[in-house]
Amino acid sequence: MDIEQANATAVSRMMDARPVLKSVATARDVIPGMKSNLFFHAGPPVTWDRMAGPMKGAMIGAMILEGLAKTEAEATAMAERGEAQFAPNHEHGAVGPMAGVISPSMKVYVVENLTHGNKAYCNFNEGYGKVLRMGAFSDEVIKRLRWINDTFASIVGEAVAASGEGLDIRALLAEALHMGDEGHNRNKAGSLLFLKWLAPLVAKVAKDADTESEALKFIGDNALSVLNPVMAACKAMTDAAHGVEGSTLVSTMARNGTDFGIRVSGLGDRWFTAPAEIPQGLWFPGFTAADANPDIGDSAITETAGIGGFAMATAPAIVTFVGSTPKDAMNATLEMYEITAAEHKHFTMPVLDFRGTPTGIDIRKVVEKGILPRINTGVAHRLPGIGQVGAGLVRPPMAIFEEAVIAYAEKYNL
Amino acid sequence: MDIEQANATAVSRMMDARPVLKSVATARDVIPGMKSNLFFHAGPPVTWDRMAGPMKGAMIGAMILEGLAKTEAEATAMAERGEAQFAPNHEHGAVGPMAGVISPSMKVYVVENLTHGNKAYCNFNEGYGKVLRMGAFSDEVIKRLRWINDTFASIVGEAVAASGEGLDIRALLAEALHMGDEGHNRNKAGSLLFLKWLAPLVAKVAKDADTESEALKFIGDNALSVLNPVMAACKAMTDAAHGVEGSTLVSTMARNGTDFGIRVSGLGDRWFTAPAEIPQGLWFPGFTAADANPDIGDSAITETAGIGGFAMATAPAIVTFVGSTPKDAMNATLEMYEITAAEHKHFTMPVLDFRGTPTGIDIRKVVEKGILPRINTGVAHRLPGIGQVGAGLVRPPMAIFEEAVIAYAEKYNL
Repeated sequence: MDIEQANATAVSRMMDARPVLKSVATARDVIPGMKSNLFFHAGPPVTWDRMAGPMKGAMIGAMILEGLAKTEAEATAMAERGEAQFAPNHEHGAVGPMAGVISPSMKVYVVENLTHGNKAYCNFNEGYGKVLRMGAFSDEVIKRLRWINDTFASIVGEAVAASGEGLDIRALLAEALHMGDEGHNRNKAGSLLFLKWLAPLVAKVAKDADTESEALKFIGDNALSVLNPVMAACKAMTDAAHGVEGSTLVSTMARNGTDFGIRVSGLGDRWFTAPAEIPQGLWFPGFTAADANPDIGDSAITETAGIGGFAMATAPAIVTFVGSTPKDAMNATLEMYEITAAEHKHFTMPVLDFRGTPTGIDIRKVVEKGILPRINTGVAHRLPGIGQVGAGLVRPPMAIFEEAVIAYAEKYNL
Repeated sequence: MDIEQANATAVSRMMDARPVLKSVATARDVIPGMKSNLFFHAGPPVTWDRMAGPMKGAMIGAMILEGLAKTEAEATAMAERGEAQFAPNHEHGAVGPMAGVISPSMKVYVVENLTHGNKAYCNFNEGYGKVLRMGAFSDEVIKRLRWINDTFASIVGEAVAASGEGLDIRALLAEALHMGDEGHNRNKAGSLLFLKWLAPLVAKVAKDADTESEALKFIGDNALSVLNPVMAACKAMTDAAHGVEGSTLVSTMARNGTDFGIRVSGLGDRWFTAPAEIPQGLWFPGFTAADANPDIGDSAITETAGIGGFAMATAPAIVTFVGSTPKDAMNATLEMYEITAAEHKHFTMPVLDFRGTPTGIDIRKVVEKGILPRINTGVAHRLPGIGQVGAGLVRPPMAIFEEAVIAYAEKYNL
């Protein structure tokens, strides 16, 4: 077994993948395995009884959105009776930020990797404040979701269709990384590049001026607009690197608010999990670390693909949001070179003389050097129905990397 | 004479100025002193016989645009007979990039400094390729200018009017400096922030979908869209710092392609001039330094206001355009602290731990330390009718600072 060769293959596939936003569609129509009463979620598999507060909150909201329940009590009862089923996004080619819930009628971005042909899906970003992905499910949350699903996503979908070719998300990310984004918690430039591409198309497909104006304002004012297509793109890139025989590279990092899970390219579909940690960061006014739910969300797919916390050096302004210093941001990136297989071909950082971002986490290096991946993240309240309480930095538990190394040794008889 | 106190007053006025884009208007209707047959230009005063090629080219194009001439020969004859008159933008509250020509019928951005009440004006950016500001005047150049004047500027003007409050350009710049812009040659993020603000307004005022789509595409695709409002904003800020008795701070740096000129806050309206130098930089394919016209344009108003070449540290990606390294970009900013009076209150650089940009060039420090201001600039072909040949870095001639210091000593009996 030539591990280095296997890892070179895996990381090349990750970097050569060319994810393009091709369409907007309804989840049940396009995501393999999606069906009525099935709800996808972030992170590794988890049952209702072990689900974290914010994920339960998001599930309740999704059941209300689907018309399966009218109240929190009805939704909870349905879940407890097993009438609602749950499955990880990651096992269906999908991803979602924070709770990451995707229900059958939700509109999703469809991203296609033109190099290898695989597809990936992500839901729409709801903006800030009380949002489903943070576990909130009040009337205002459901109302916004309905507007996104019925009006906004349709306009965006028609605009994407009108473009013909779709939007090259890898190229967008490469440009955004030269504009102070790291692609995970800071997507300010990327979201404006998304707007720049969409606006002339939206102008052509929109039916009336007010709806159009509202849609353009929603894209522009939400500095996370592009996070969801970016996550689908990262999923398309990392899925392309999955399943390379003998590779020790991580192809999935995801959290469900209870457990942190990874999957490894050469170790099939097995999840390695351990309890998720609480991020260290900055708390919104009125909240403290005691309010914080443990780490949650599929958005660590960005770090898995070589951006996010791995590209912090190029995004020094992010420290005002996650609580750190520009020096620490630089050091975060430099440290990640210690545990990765390559410097990205397409994602470069001007401040480091255009060096490629550290890409392809090697479970051997993580364990040998005792250096864990760095992740930038939002933080949800630990109770259902509340929402975001802050943002910060977090690392996975070391145990899952150790377990993966042992599993690798067993599988490959090392 | 308390020079330090005078300089503190001047630089505070520069930083406290709050330039807001308030409207779009026709030059002859709003710029003081504008009249028929009068053409404003970049830099210090210059007569037709001493005018650089690209400025002559731009003047020819402007005379054709105004309907005063049909051909290059007719325009040249008019200029030679003295039927067309010329005056510096800077003496009329205006600025313009490169040749910087503003003719009576051109639409201009009107920026008002809410703190001190003064106004500033700038023409519209034409985008790339063959453009009037680089000295080109072919039919395609005139056609684009007419579309900008008759269609595009009207839509932007209606959008600005529909906003009610206008656009706070100082706030926009502060944000763009956190997104890899330096505000002079790199205005990629700023132009997208401009688009973000304009798009929902344009959606409401545009008459038809095709024109609207074209306008949104023109704003988004031109990474210099916001340069012209930014220049007007810098002019409003630096004019606010002009005329402070006893101040040795530079309130104007501008080039007409023949001479480089400065004005000093405490030395009235006198220009100190010397021959402009040829920028060092990167040449577009097919061109060399031999094609380059000496330094030209009012855009050095950005450096005068503490951004542009002075803020290069925050814009390392710019080096691919102007020919330099990220290390040099950092050093450029650090060097400028040696010759300036303050660190900007509002313009900060994350990579330098959010230190303010070096602001308020002190002629005493320039002469004593032998350090000249750094300017990022585009480069025009030295002949009329051709256009841009590259971009690079340039410094003013030392002689004008020495002359200003002597004039200061004479005026204030030092």
